[in-house]
Amino acid sequence: MSLPETVILTEVGLRDGLQSVAELVPSEAKLDAIQKLVDAGLKQVQVTSFVHPKWVPQMADAEEVCAGLPETTEDVVFSGLVLNAKGVERASAAGLKRVDASISTSDTHSRKNANMGLDEALKHLKKMVALANDAGMEVRAGLQSVWGCVYDGYPPDERIVDMVSKVIDMGVIALSLADSTGMANPNSIKQLLEKTLPLCQDTPVVLHLHDTRGLGIANVVAAMEMGVNQFDTALGGLGGCPFIKGATGNIATEDTINLMNEMGIDTGVDLSKVAQTSKALQESVPESCFTGKLYKMEN
Amino acid sequence: MSLPETVILTEVGLRDGLQSVAELVPSEAKLDAIQKLVDAGLKQVQVTSFVHPKWVPQMADAEEVCAGLPETTEDVVFSGLVLNAKGVERASAAGLKRVDASISTSDTHSRKNANMGLDEALKHLKKMVALANDAGMEVRAGLQSVWGCVYDGYPPDERIVDMVSKVIDMGVIALSLADSTGMANPNSIKQLLEKTLPLCQDTPVVLHLHDTRGLGIANVVAAMEMGVNQFDTALGGLGGCPFIKGATGNIATEDTINLMNEMGIDTGVDLSKVAQTSKALQESVPESCFTGKLYKMEN
Repeated sequence: MSLPETVILTEVGLRDGLQSVAELVPSEAKLDAIQKLVDAGLKQVQVTSFVHPKWVPQMADAEEVCAGLPETTEDVVFSGLVLNAKGVERASAAGLKRVDASISTSDTHSRKNANMGLDEALKHLKKMVALANDAGMEVRAGLQSVWGCVYDGYPPDERIVDMVSKVIDMGVIALSLADSTGMANPNSIKQLLEKTLPLCQDTPVVLHLHDTRGLGIANVVAAMEMGVNQFDTALGGLGGCPFIKGATGNIATEDTINLMNEMGIDTGVDLSKVAQTSKALQESVPESCFTGKLYKMEN
Repeated sequence: MSLPETVILTEVGLRDGLQSVAELVPSEAKLDAIQKLVDAGLKQVQVTSFVHPKWVPQMADAEEVCAGLPETTEDVVFSGLVLNAKGVERASAAGLKRVDASISTSDTHSRKNANMGLDEALKHLKKMVALANDAGMEVRAGLQSVWGCVYDGYPPDERIVDMVSKVIDMGVIALSLADSTGMANPNSIKQLLEKTLPLCQDTPVVLHLHDTRGLGIANVVAAMEMGVNQFDTALGGLGGCPFIKGATGNIATEDTINLMNEMGIDTGVDLSKVAQTSKALQESVPESCFTGKLYKMEN
């Protein structure tokens, strides 16, 4: 199987990673990390989420972070996660040009997290996409728990195929498929991508993989063998705490870059610069769970 | 590519894992772990190494551990690592039926660790094999740093091919190829196995992979795609400390079992029993680096 020559990484550590960190990180520190990530060569950075500060206090400074974003070249895209219309409005007011809108593919997860079943969640997503587009923002849509859910187990392929097809019809700039709980394996990655990639046509597919059970990087390789060339990663593998059952960590940005470097695949991102950024962030929140390997090797 | 239906794991945590743990683990605790591993279904357990206690104090109780090994069925094999003739004699006197004899494929590593160049190391290995066979023991031979060395970088394929060929000619029960520094990637695993597996004919090849850079499990998958169906693993991923540059951890036994379970490959080993054993060992040496994922999820 042939592998892609280049891979695009989207940094999600400042959102998916930091949202599980109890100790509040000052906006200046977040902005400093964002600047360093851009300097390292990352072109896509998810910088915050527009959720109620009562639920995720770490993201209460979403507007402040957006106001302080560095001036960059046009090929750098900053995005924010949105889960409802209010989030879309806030992202637009904050001046973002892209939002990441996401729903679950697990009914129980969707009801617990968003208080709605799957059909309603799809309608909800469609409205968010329209609202964001009307506000001049592009939308990356995301499906969560695609390869398994701690509540509902493994979803039937038919459901994922159906949901992918409906999301693609909404007209989005990209589709992210998330293994939110790290329950995917190289076989299931390939099997589901074989069924879903053809539905996506020209819409790029991004894989958002967690390393909860240590299979994250193996799943990246399996996905690349199927032609996927975009992945979400988090600096230092931040995200969730491995000491809590079912809690999850993202695949680490610098470890993923190392995989690509070693396999001769270009990311355009400087491994050492990202690793140093991860190390600095880890030192600022030492109680948090950074599960990446390579940032620890930085001097 | 087709994957094997069954995979055989050799537990090396009590040797390769514990040897880096400064706090001495009582022999009774090691024997308790060995009993639990056998109860979990492991058929091959490397229980100790016969090295000078001055260099590895944790292994000073090699004879005591061997004297206390549980009665088992015939299909369970306990082995000890040996690095010289003295080690072979000690293993024989301790009543072991199998030794693991190992040399490096990196000249600098070999000179630093064993005070001999590669040609001399091969002669040395041949003598150990003969000595062990004469004593009625079977030998698994091992080559270290096959996919890279922190001193010498990546070895030329020709050297590995030559050394594999010579070791196979010595007549050993199995050949282990070690990525001692975690520098392999799925591409290099496949490329080198393509060249070396045909030389091994009927001699089983065991891969000994470290997860230093997070690629251990991805490398397992790549090796299985080439037909390899034997791997060394360590309970809890014990082995080396990820906070020390270049230090290395083995791939975790329970994480590897989970990979196999999820991909429908039979190991005959109970994941939860191994994870509980890892958890108990981790709690007895809390300062040590257990980098596995799944043992943390045990209640």
